[in-house]
Amino acid sequence: MLCTNLIRKKRFGKVLDADEWHFLIDSFCDGSVTDAQMAAMAMAICIRGLTPDEIFCLTNEMLASGTRLPRVSDRPRVDKHSTGGLGDKVSLILAPLLASLGCDVPMISGRGLGRTGGTLDKLEAIEGFQTSLSIEESSKVLAEVGAFIIGADERIAPADRRLYALRDVTATVESVGLITASILSKKLAASLDALVMDVKVGSGGFMPTHGEAIELAESLVRVGEQSGMPTRAILSDMDQPLGDAFGASIGNAIEVNEAIAVLSDQRSSELNSPVRELTIALSASALVQAGVMADLATAETKLRERLASGHAMERFEKMVVAQGGHLNGPLPVARRRDFLAERDGFVERINCPAIGDAIIAAGGGRKRGGEKLDHRVGIQTFVRVGDAVKKGQVLFAIFDDSDSIATSIQNASGPWVSLSETPVAARDLILESIPSDPVAQHATT
Amino acid sequence: MLCTNLIRKKRFGKVLDADEWHFLIDSFCDGSVTDAQMAAMAMAICIRGLTPDEIFCLTNEMLASGTRLPRVSDRPRVDKHSTGGLGDKVSLILAPLLASLGCDVPMISGRGLGRTGGTLDKLEAIEGFQTSLSIEESSKVLAEVGAFIIGADERIAPADRRLYALRDVTATVESVGLITASILSKKLAASLDALVMDVKVGSGGFMPTHGEAIELAESLVRVGEQSGMPTRAILSDMDQPLGDAFGASIGNAIEVNEAIAVLSDQRSSELNSPVRELTIALSASALVQAGVMADLATAETKLRERLASGHAMERFEKMVVAQGGHLNGPLPVARRRDFLAERDGFVERINCPAIGDAIIAAGGGRKRGGEKLDHRVGIQTFVRVGDAVKKGQVLFAIFDDSDSIATSIQNASGPWVSLSETPVAARDLILESIPSDPVAQHATT
Repeated sequence: MLCTNLIRKKRFGKVLDADEWHFLIDSFCDGSVTDAQMAAMAMAICIRGLTPDEIFCLTNEMLASGTRLPRVSDRPRVDKHSTGGLGDKVSLILAPLLASLGCDVPMISGRGLGRTGGTLDKLEAIEGFQTSLSIEESSKVLAEVGAFIIGADERIAPADRRLYALRDVTATVESVGLITASILSKKLAASLDALVMDVKVGSGGFMPTHGEAIELAESLVRVGEQSGMPTRAILSDMDQPLGDAFGASIGNAIEVNEAIAVLSDQRSSELNSPVRELTIALSASALVQAGVMADLATAETKLRERLASGHAMERFEKMVVAQGGHLNGPLPVARRRDFLAERDGFVERINCPAIGDAIIAAGGGRKRGGEKLDHRVGIQTFVRVGDAVKKGQVLFAIFDDSDSIATSIQNASGPWVSLSETPVAARDLILESIPSDPVAQHATT
Repeated sequence: MLCTNLIRKKRFGKVLDADEWHFLIDSFCDGSVTDAQMAAMAMAICIRGLTPDEIFCLTNEMLASGTRLPRVSDRPRVDKHSTGGLGDKVSLILAPLLASLGCDVPMISGRGLGRTGGTLDKLEAIEGFQTSLSIEESSKVLAEVGAFIIGADERIAPADRRLYALRDVTATVESVGLITASILSKKLAASLDALVMDVKVGSGGFMPTHGEAIELAESLVRVGEQSGMPTRAILSDMDQPLGDAFGASIGNAIEVNEAIAVLSDQRSSELNSPVRELTIALSASALVQAGVMADLATAETKLRERLASGHAMERFEKMVVAQGGHLNGPLPVARRRDFLAERDGFVERINCPAIGDAIIAAGGGRKRGGEKLDHRVGIQTFVRVGDAVKKGQVLFAIFDDSDSIATSIQNASGPWVSLSETPVAARDLILESIPSDPVAQHATT
């Protein structure tokens, strides 16, 4: 078998069989397939696509390139993964919340690149927090706390690690097949009893259209199930930053503060907090899939109780300590400056790409891998699409000791918050569940 | 400008402008665009294609990545380039022939890879022959002899050298745009007064269909002319090996011997020698383009005279000596074994791919770059499509001291020479000229 022939097949839109995928990934791992060859293959895959069977083969070959996380308890093992979005701090809340209900949540997460922030970057805003634990160290944390959030050990799906680094610089990130294989190879290595995927739709994520998001969600569920891991997906809105009832924070330290606010239930649980509601929906799905709870309604009730009782926050604090961090009240953020509505109106659009780019420009996100971040910069939006606003009301605030974000606002081609003179409909937060599940849906009504 | 954005544009079928091509090739040369990025770009180009303007930009950026050959005389400077085919030894005859008519022929040639042999490999069958001359050394040979045949100096179009090596291992060789840029960037560096392209059509070349060959020929002529270099293309048949009246040799030493036979006019010039006729047609086109001759008919007459008079052979011998070679009669070849017709019939097909693969298997061609060759192995076919043959007549001979070629014949899925019971039409050698030129055509009738 010749690697060049396999690349040629995909170049001309042919289907590779299981043996061919095995040969390709095996050869990539032993170095006989070069980065250049794999980059050409990735481009051919992006343009020509992969069949469901090919995605299954590729996922499982990437899994087989590495080791698996050992079992450390008899507790059900669940996890959530998001395709990434502006202000998405769900993982920080969900992992300790599910652990507080007796689950193990071995969360292997990523760093921010492009406009969507990374969970590991947010956690590193906490003094001393360690995200690079060995498999042995992380197993110890999991046994003690029931949750960890770490970067992928290099022994987990090393083929994915190397391929992802290539895709990032070769414009081959957006591919349903490659994204599915990349996410699931690492999740399968954790031998989960349930995985719930949060697939973001809209300008603040990287699947801008509903159709693309559905395609990815269906691929993830299909390959997850085919590989023996119960998998569900929720499509959630990412056309505005995800946040709490009082505002949506985007940045690193500022997002940790928001997650702590939700975990501590500091603010009235009667107010609508999108980040809390999405966390509960995802967590409930995981609990039902793993058989921990009989139905979504029961699961949601239990989850709310755990937030209100302080058990979830307690578990978060334990996890922070177990991973070397020191929490002493809210994390420090940069100097705040408010931006006010210049007239009355209704919020029509929040410019997620511009906000994401401003965070990157200010050092809160990365232009390229490996850059050190300024965890103190941030942006907080105080309105959501559909809100009626009055002249002089605070629309958003920026947190920045330099003038970087203010300059981004001046140079933006349009306003960050667009107002309409006529009423605008609010957006649904949760758009769809995949597969649609009549029993589960019934339980929530 | 970000390289990843340029790759992304091509991935989605967008057109890059001149500045973007400049940035891409410049960054590739200074190392800031990696091999993996360029391989992904090459794959996107292969699948999405390039516009004529993009091919022009790419060609000229690759040219600008290196230096140009200096002028060494006031003689008109002409060259021929072939897309490569089985038994194609035209360059060995054409360069000294045109030099004998007062032209400078600074021929930068390639090595064999895949089924088509390389001119440099053939010449290296001559004891002592040096194909790696510096620009200074080759200029001296050109001034003295009027012709050289060498490999590309690394200062000529280095971007092409690096990209070609990548394309070879990433299944991105077949692309009209990339082939055009690769060939012409090196030819433009020679500041030619005329270039004639021999574009092969058929199973013994690598443009199997007439449509693909036309597309490539038109692209070469368009970009050559647009870049200020008079360029013509001839489409010639490559569904059977190219050879002399008495047989077509495929291999290295054996092809040099055949070239010498044509140059020495040893065999009756009245017999139809396809390799001689194609060489004359290509040479005549170059002479008319460069303004050395007024029309093709005059040019052809002069070319035949130079072969008959021994001037062409004399020039070949001078070139061999100037490049360090020693010619003492025919080059040694391996042990000969004949294969006979088992019945009467008409030649329907000659299996070029099988013959090319057998030469590679026997060490006469390369599976991968850098392999050392056995110059003594070869194959000679004695019939052409349409020939009537009698049982017991020699169809072809193999030259091989091992059993490699004989084994290839045994393992082939069909015969190397297929016979039909009913008459078969002979194939035209020269299929088309591009651009079609009524004046020039008139001159030959």
